[in-house]
Amino acid sequence: MRRVDTSPAYRILDTDTVPAFIGSLPEIRALLGGPPESWLVHEVGDGNLNLVFIVRGLEGSSLCVKQALPYLRVAGSSWPMTLERAFFEASYYSAVAPYVGGLIPTIYHYDRELYCTVMECLSAHIILRQGLIAGRRYPNVARDVGEYIARASFFTSDFARPFEQKMDGIAVFARNKELVRITVDLVFCDPYRSSARNHHTSPHLDEVVAELRGDSRLKVAAAHFGMKFLNEAQALVHGDLHSGSVMVTEGNTRVIDPEFAFYGPIGFDLGAFLGNLLLSWYSQPGHATEQDNRVGYQHWILEQVEAFWDSFRSNFLALWAENAHGDALPTSMFTRPTETLTLESARNAFLDGLFADMLGFGACKMIRRIVGFAHVIDFDRIHDADVRARCEANALAMARALLSYPGQFCSIQDVIEAVPRMARH
Amino acid sequence: MRRVDTSPAYRILDTDTVPAFIGSLPEIRALLGGPPESWLVHEVGDGNLNLVFIVRGLEGSSLCVKQALPYLRVAGSSWPMTLERAFFEASYYSAVAPYVGGLIPTIYHYDRELYCTVMECLSAHIILRQGLIAGRRYPNVARDVGEYIARASFFTSDFARPFEQKMDGIAVFARNKELVRITVDLVFCDPYRSSARNHHTSPHLDEVVAELRGDSRLKVAAAHFGMKFLNEAQALVHGDLHSGSVMVTEGNTRVIDPEFAFYGPIGFDLGAFLGNLLLSWYSQPGHATEQDNRVGYQHWILEQVEAFWDSFRSNFLALWAENAHGDALPTSMFTRPTETLTLESARNAFLDGLFADMLGFGACKMIRRIVGFAHVIDFDRIHDADVRARCEANALAMARALLSYPGQFCSIQDVIEAVPRMARH
Repeated sequence: MRRVDTSPAYRILDTDTVPAFIGSLPEIRALLGGPPESWLVHEVGDGNLNLVFIVRGLEGSSLCVKQALPYLRVAGSSWPMTLERAFFEASYYSAVAPYVGGLIPTIYHYDRELYCTVMECLSAHIILRQGLIAGRRYPNVARDVGEYIARASFFTSDFARPFEQKMDGIAVFARNKELVRITVDLVFCDPYRSSARNHHTSPHLDEVVAELRGDSRLKVAAAHFGMKFLNEAQALVHGDLHSGSVMVTEGNTRVIDPEFAFYGPIGFDLGAFLGNLLLSWYSQPGHATEQDNRVGYQHWILEQVEAFWDSFRSNFLALWAENAHGDALPTSMFTRPTETLTLESARNAFLDGLFADMLGFGACKMIRRIVGFAHVIDFDRIHDADVRARCEANALAMARALLSYPGQFCSIQDVIEAVPRMARH
Repeated sequence: MRRVDTSPAYRILDTDTVPAFIGSLPEIRALLGGPPESWLVHEVGDGNLNLVFIVRGLEGSSLCVKQALPYLRVAGSSWPMTLERAFFEASYYSAVAPYVGGLIPTIYHYDRELYCTVMECLSAHIILRQGLIAGRRYPNVARDVGEYIARASFFTSDFARPFEQKMDGIAVFARNKELVRITVDLVFCDPYRSSARNHHTSPHLDEVVAELRGDSRLKVAAAHFGMKFLNEAQALVHGDLHSGSVMVTEGNTRVIDPEFAFYGPIGFDLGAFLGNLLLSWYSQPGHATEQDNRVGYQHWILEQVEAFWDSFRSNFLALWAENAHGDALPTSMFTRPTETLTLESARNAFLDGLFADMLGFGACKMIRRIVGFAHVIDFDRIHDADVRARCEANALAMARALLSYPGQFCSIQDVIEAVPRMARH
């Protein structure tokens, strides 16, 4: 196995060695209470990519230890993967924590030699994607994630800060090449060409997939967003903000797993979340039961689509109104009384651009989950292949419309109205 | 004086110490021939920003030693400036040399401690701006600079190479913050707001300048290009490619002074050169004599505008046809026979975007040279303030049209036809 990079001190932790490691950190020791020997440690990760240990102290306090493994275990074989992703994850958390502290886990410690983060244990939370499959409603999540992206992106953009701070960040995250490579290949290229890594529900979707790979206009649009992804360093983005990177309880939301972080287009995070809400919508018939046909739940999802965009937009504009201390669109150029309106209209135009980006990136994220390498359990858990294929075909139709006819989607209402129209099967 | 950064070994060279320094480099020694004591050294720089020494060997060979000074001397006082600009200049040269070797000076050596570059001596060349003021014609220069920008930008973009190479470059040049700060302030902000650094031909242009600073639509357009400058890392750009950064003989062209280099929008280099050709056009009446009214020369300049864009465009497309090995718009997504046309049309659309960027950035560069801090000798050498002000007002009118009504300029022919129309005074 190729080991891309490990520090000489790197060693894989286990339930026996975790207490000694975190016991050496005074803050952690105080938090868990009692001697390290008294702590209970369980490994709860799936072991594909990271080790995840839950450590509990005697008095009920707990925390989570996440260590990167130097490979990704997929389909029985292993794919070497840089440990440095743990560093970028920790760097992202610490860059955005001042702005979105309540919406990420509390980070207690990052160890550069072990590529290991000690963080708050979210034992009451579940992965949003699981909740969406189960048909559960989380009244705050869409608004929270909208606010999250607004805050994390606004404050790391040139609207909020002197550009030098962004350039400092860019210099750091420009090294996160291995994970960006995954996105470039798996999101923007492979789905649109032949690749041994691609798969789809077959033979049901064979024709639809062939049609997609033959749709030159669609591919140019996808390539356009691939180019934007590589060129447009608007802000620090999470880079993988789908419903599997959001943990929820009834009232609480946390964004996790930002190892794909880099300076990129804000619309990429918006699109990841939107696209995965839409995938969930299209997957719902596959999760219908006699007790619940999921039609009401689909309505709820579309309400979340609207709440998500409205929350992002209004939060971003509100932050901008109060914190325009950066070099992009500087207020010092617009100081006459009437120019309040000028600024407002320029800001609205910028948000319109983000809206269009959200739809384009969202569509790319949807397509790759149906015809690319890594699929989503929203569809994979639908055991009846006929039903699954119908759900997937509808989602693909929506994604293709978003990419091919962007002019038809001028508002979030246009999107919401189109979603059921594309469920023709 | 604040010294931002100097290595402990940094010392300011002089004509006495240069021979010992370069004499220690075998390649240089062989090139100049004879013992270092026999070399003739002259300091020829203006001492404002860099020291420039010409060193001649006994047999007529020569080279140039350029050392950065830790300040910029302006208007009698001094402005501390990072020595690291010499590093970025050397890094830029070495990044683009494989692609534009014949169009930059040959670089023999860069010394990281002395912030000093040893390079080919261009003693037969003069600065293009000087030639334009003198009314001299250089048949190749526009085509050469067009080809230069095409090659330097194409090969450092994601069209030519795996994106990882661009990210490596971005990590390096993201540290060139002090020079990028100068551009952000002096090109995109100060001209459009009150600043002690601004000046203009007064009182002649007072009214025009007040009108410009009150033109909200124009300022939003300028701010839009300022944002693009900060966000759009398309390729490694020179960052200051005006007619003072080009050296010429009758048949030879060299691009110099790339210390503002960073990963940014390709249109920024295009606009710098175009904008300065247009400034030259508008300045010509100020250099007219009884023997030469410069009308014919103005025609020649407009021919160069066309040749420049045509050369850039055709070279960029030709390179793309042969070297599309990158991750942006990958050919592997467009392999069916009919998709040759698809790719061609997508590439043309990208070039149309660069054209629009060139006009916008060009206009910003023109405006800042008339109402901002650093002016150009094309105008400053016009001693009659009335004549100078008329020339400047015309150039400003053109720049404002380019920024405010981009829809009126769909081709380089549209630009060429508009130029004389704006010379109403």
